[in-house]
Amino acid sequence: MTHAVDQHSAPVPPVRLPLRPELADETPYGAPQLDVPVLLNVNENPYPPGEDVVATIAEEVARAARGMNRYPDRDATVLRQDLADYLTLETGVDLDHCDVWAANGSNEVMLHVLQAFGGPGRTALSFAPTYSMYPEYARDTHTAWVVGRREADFTLDPDHAARTIREVRPSVILLASPNNPTGTALPAATVEAVCAAALEVDIDGAHPVVVVDEAYAEFRRPGTPSAVALLERYPNLAVTRTMSKAFAAAGARLGYLVASNDFVDALRIVRLPYHLSAITQAAAGAALRHRESLMAQVATLRAERDATVRWLRQQRRPDGTPFDVAESDANFVLFGTFADRHAVWQGLLDRGVLIRETGPDGWLRVSIGTPAEMATFREALVEVLRNQQQDEQQDEHGEARA
Amino acid sequence: MTHAVDQHSAPVPPVRLPLRPELADETPYGAPQLDVPVLLNVNENPYPPGEDVVATIAEEVARAARGMNRYPDRDATVLRQDLADYLTLETGVDLDHCDVWAANGSNEVMLHVLQAFGGPGRTALSFAPTYSMYPEYARDTHTAWVVGRREADFTLDPDHAARTIREVRPSVILLASPNNPTGTALPAATVEAVCAAALEVDIDGAHPVVVVDEAYAEFRRPGTPSAVALLERYPNLAVTRTMSKAFAAAGARLGYLVASNDFVDALRIVRLPYHLSAITQAAAGAALRHRESLMAQVATLRAERDATVRWLRQQRRPDGTPFDVAESDANFVLFGTFADRHAVWQGLLDRGVLIRETGPDGWLRVSIGTPAEMATFREALVEVLRNQQQDEQQDEHGEARA
Repeated sequence: MTHAVDQHSAPVPPVRLPLRPELADETPYGAPQLDVPVLLNVNENPYPPGEDVVATIAEEVARAARGMNRYPDRDATVLRQDLADYLTLETGVDLDHCDVWAANGSNEVMLHVLQAFGGPGRTALSFAPTYSMYPEYARDTHTAWVVGRREADFTLDPDHAARTIREVRPSVILLASPNNPTGTALPAATVEAVCAAALEVDIDGAHPVVVVDEAYAEFRRPGTPSAVALLERYPNLAVTRTMSKAFAAAGARLGYLVASNDFVDALRIVRLPYHLSAITQAAAGAALRHRESLMAQVATLRAERDATVRWLRQQRRPDGTPFDVAESDANFVLFGTFADRHAVWQGLLDRGVLIRETGPDGWLRVSIGTPAEMATFREALVEVLRNQQQDEQQDEHGEARA
Repeated sequence: MTHAVDQHSAPVPPVRLPLRPELADETPYGAPQLDVPVLLNVNENPYPPGEDVVATIAEEVARAARGMNRYPDRDATVLRQDLADYLTLETGVDLDHCDVWAANGSNEVMLHVLQAFGGPGRTALSFAPTYSMYPEYARDTHTAWVVGRREADFTLDPDHAARTIREVRPSVILLASPNNPTGTALPAATVEAVCAAALEVDIDGAHPVVVVDEAYAEFRRPGTPSAVALLERYPNLAVTRTMSKAFAAAGARLGYLVASNDFVDALRIVRLPYHLSAITQAAAGAALRHRESLMAQVATLRAERDATVRWLRQQRRPDGTPFDVAESDANFVLFGTFADRHAVWQGLLDRGVLIRETGPDGWLRVSIGTPAEMATFREALVEVLRNQQQDEQQDEHGEARA
């Protein structure tokens, strides 16, 4: 639209919009969406859905589209039951649709959580380094945002967590497990310690809620627990999941949460009516029907992740010291540290491999792609580091000669 | 999930959740979703999409699903351009994707508006009776909510509007045109008066934004303007639209907004990343390609609406006085008043016709359905009123005899 000047009127003067002052210097959140051959930057599943999955989605969406003139089921009861059934299979905990909430991505689920339990005068707490969207959820809901710390190996010390909870008195505690960007899963005992500490804090006559963000849960290693198993003991606990990762459905935007009925009912109050389209409900339900083939790909990715961790541990920095590589229960690996991580990131990008410059200073995060993509990543990384080493040696010679 | 008691632990005590106090007595928003033969309660388009529309949607969604393992285009650029092109055709105003914002229903568009420009310490203003979701948007964003008044015929007095704006000093002014639940469209002069009054108010060194909600715009009568024509003169003006009504796509949840680039950029800051799924982007784009056939149905609905208004004006209440029937530029008609509107609503429901008990006391709103549905509505209404009349006469006889 061009602000037109016609013969009858003066040019339109610029008008300042009343953007909230705290947003004035903000930019829209998100990693660069670049057109690069090997995309290992936003923890996507590298395997596109098979034609069988696509066909089921097209079929179910066509069915939904035939009734698209009507509003969707506001409570998404069928989809929530499908999600409950899936989680029951995955965790062994008996669940039904009343225990499950669903929204347009975990993002919207978290927004609902903070709208219901956070807000002005309240505080959300997490432990850094952790998922970079959490402060955005807090900002968008006018919830104060406080972070405690994780240890050097990115685990969470239960005593530190409990102390911080008593001090900060948050109404919402967010724990990512496996954590993004570190890949660290929390032991059940740590989650229990956090839930127990929360029960000691009084917020307007109630207790803080604890939300364990298990976006990457399906990638956890054998023996790593899901906090879903703790739900029946802690009614202030919720676990969020997503179809973006294990179900290879980042484009479908379906996040969900499992908790007590009371917890879910609180989210129903703040959700906008008909927040989840009939098309989304149909597409997500269709993908869930292909659970078995999609989970076979998850097993492949887990194996590739473990191989990537092993390979990274064998690598050396330009100064000859070995990489630090975080334990990972997710579909990505955090590794480092590099004196100039941006140079490593840029070197990879120059070679057609996009990874993520995120996490504590000096670390980089690589998502697990296909075996071919990971081979390209490994070759590119070796080359980048060799070039850096050569550059450094030349610099030293240069300095020596100078 | 049943909160289990095993042999090792005591029963889990109930835990109070820290639901915000102002939400404690709230219930989830929404009209009853009842299984009734004739649904004329939520202003849905009664015509399901044709098989050609369904086929395009299935095809485009299948295409999107093939890349569904990746996150969607965060800026939905293609869809926003399609929407801009449609609006350019519909209004004659030259627009491109930078002028357009899209989200999961007008609900989410409005949430973004209030997140960017409303919030704690700020006020949103509208003029009642108007859309019942507006106070929910305000509540969900901690924006104060004030309403001025519409006249007895549901028009908006520009002087009252300007005075109220100067007094209330809102940062966001919401004007529904055509208004829900009354059907009243605003003349361009009224919208201009509101925009001009807004430019006289200073909010943190800026001016209030004016959002004209044109959810029902395509149903307006010939000669009724769209506020889109005013956008180039008022950079603080935005117009929202939806695909729920004219495009018969309530189930697809696609709302959009057209405004200056600056306005749209402000919304991009508060949107959650990837808020609009690849599936939704594909389905909405597919429906837009069938604009012509869908708009033919809109013409049918407009004619049926005008016929419904005429018919309602010929009806009499049990006391013999004629109905009041609001002028309508939408796909619904507000009529009344009834001493006991709930009895009329219930009588219709008992006959398989669900309308909406909404608007000022005594009024009822009926959405425009197919000719057959409207015939059922008319027969049912005549019967309900005749029965009421008979009951009243019997009561009078009974009293006379007693």
